[in-house]
Amino acid sequence: MKNGTNTKKKLNILVCNDDGIDAPGIFALVEELRRIGEITVVAPAKQQSAVGHAITMNHPLRVREYHRDGKFFGFAVDGTPADCVKLAIRALLKKKPNLLVSGINHGSNTAISIIYSGTVSAATEGTIFGIPSIAISLTTYAKPDFRYAAKFARKIAQKVADEGLPEGTLLNVNVPPIPEKEIRGVLVTRQGKARWDDRFDARRDPANKEYYWLTGQLEETDKGLQFDQSAVRGKYVSVTPIQYDLTDYEMMAKMKRWSIDRLK
Amino acid sequence: MKNGTNTKKKLNILVCNDDGIDAPGIFALVEELRRIGEITVVAPAKQQSAVGHAITMNHPLRVREYHRDGKFFGFAVDGTPADCVKLAIRALLKKKPNLLVSGINHGSNTAISIIYSGTVSAATEGTIFGIPSIAISLTTYAKPDFRYAAKFARKIAQKVADEGLPEGTLLNVNVPPIPEKEIRGVLVTRQGKARWDDRFDARRDPANKEYYWLTGQLEETDKGLQFDQSAVRGKYVSVTPIQYDLTDYEMMAKMKRWSIDRLK
Repeated sequence: MKNGTNTKKKLNILVCNDDGIDAPGIFALVEELRRIGEITVVAPAKQQSAVGHAITMNHPLRVREYHRDGKFFGFAVDGTPADCVKLAIRALLKKKPNLLVSGINHGSNTAISIIYSGTVSAATEGTIFGIPSIAISLTTYAKPDFRYAAKFARKIAQKVADEGLPEGTLLNVNVPPIPEKEIRGVLVTRQGKARWDDRFDARRDPANKEYYWLTGQLEETDKGLQFDQSAVRGKYVSVTPIQYDLTDYEMMAKMKRWSIDRLK
Repeated sequence: MKNGTNTKKKLNILVCNDDGIDAPGIFALVEELRRIGEITVVAPAKQQSAVGHAITMNHPLRVREYHRDGKFFGFAVDGTPADCVKLAIRALLKKKPNLLVSGINHGSNTAISIIYSGTVSAATEGTIFGIPSIAISLTTYAKPDFRYAAKFARKIAQKVADEGLPEGTLLNVNVPPIPEKEIRGVLVTRQGKARWDDRFDARRDPANKEYYWLTGQLEETDKGLQFDQSAVRGKYVSVTPIQYDLTDYEMMAKMKRWSIDRLK
């Protein structure tokens, strides 16, 4: 079965992110996507980076209309990216969108970072609802120029609308932060294996109590253009099809020799 | 390569959860695991259910010693389960543990719920650090009796210490909430495909402003004992090997015909 889209129909695109509804990346994205469809923005009221696939169950969600330059821009939700998508589809939208784009994230979502990413979780949530979904990130933390990433987002969104995606599959896109003419091409990649070299900076507050700041960086252990992180480093746009069946099927087979029933 | 454990050595077990350091599930777990090793508890100070793989980057973490019955029980961290594991390994523990057990969660972590689970995210974080890791849940939200689940946790922990786990693989265990004598056996399962039937309960506060409560339940669409959720419903303990390479390799191959480089 495919999460497909009939392109003869008008595209209804749901846009979300994790940097918050007032982030420049989502403005750039919406501006480009308006060229190919009707856009509804439902995004977190505040920055929600690294929230992973968190959902809010222990307190209620509030929604307010967010205006930009005096015009209605979208719905701001005081929750996580996954909350935004659930709420959009189940409560705010009159009909189910036929495409979801999450981003443009300010910073990369490659390798192990995918599992911490709010941007990706919004697209995953769309996929769970059967909507073809794309997460897109610009891989820099410095002064971002979202123009090329937004243009690429429009092209890949149109491509996904045309081709559809298999049920349970989404695309995770990472764009290098360089001028368009320096981009070498577009590669279909796999999730890298690089991990974060986590460090904690231990400090003392004015009352002499200790506290810890998480710091560190993504290790650059992946070599070769087949991996998302190294493709981006090599000046390619990286497109990784991902899914959320976490089962390790190889290990399932190996565990036959564990005689696990004896553990009862 | 294996995340293995030499069982001739004393087991050093890191215990975490997402229900909080004062939850009954973690007490039951620690009591049983003390029979096979030295335990260090590093767990969230407060309930952190459904936080997914969130990590805390925008504010510092604080740690305090938590006592139970007048004795030191463990470290309470004002962060997420993934924060706890990172902080334990990088800042609190003198040496890296050779086993991690997360739980016992009060409620199931099966099918799509795995991606929202703080309990699983702690075990995933342990796996990223190369520690053989297990997440364990008791599949009820009603009056829990953690005794059998704790006993099973000890047995599967010993088995993992003996056998090791492949690099990047962890075990996700779900125990049905029934007396030990009614348990039919132990099955190696795959992640179910059941989704949540999300609903939002829209209400108005005293100031007549709208707010939304997330509600709904896991759809019981999986049939057959090969799936985690249905195995538990069939009165079996479910053990699912999972991993965090989300790449959809089948789709990668199919995307060759997308001529994706033309999108540049």
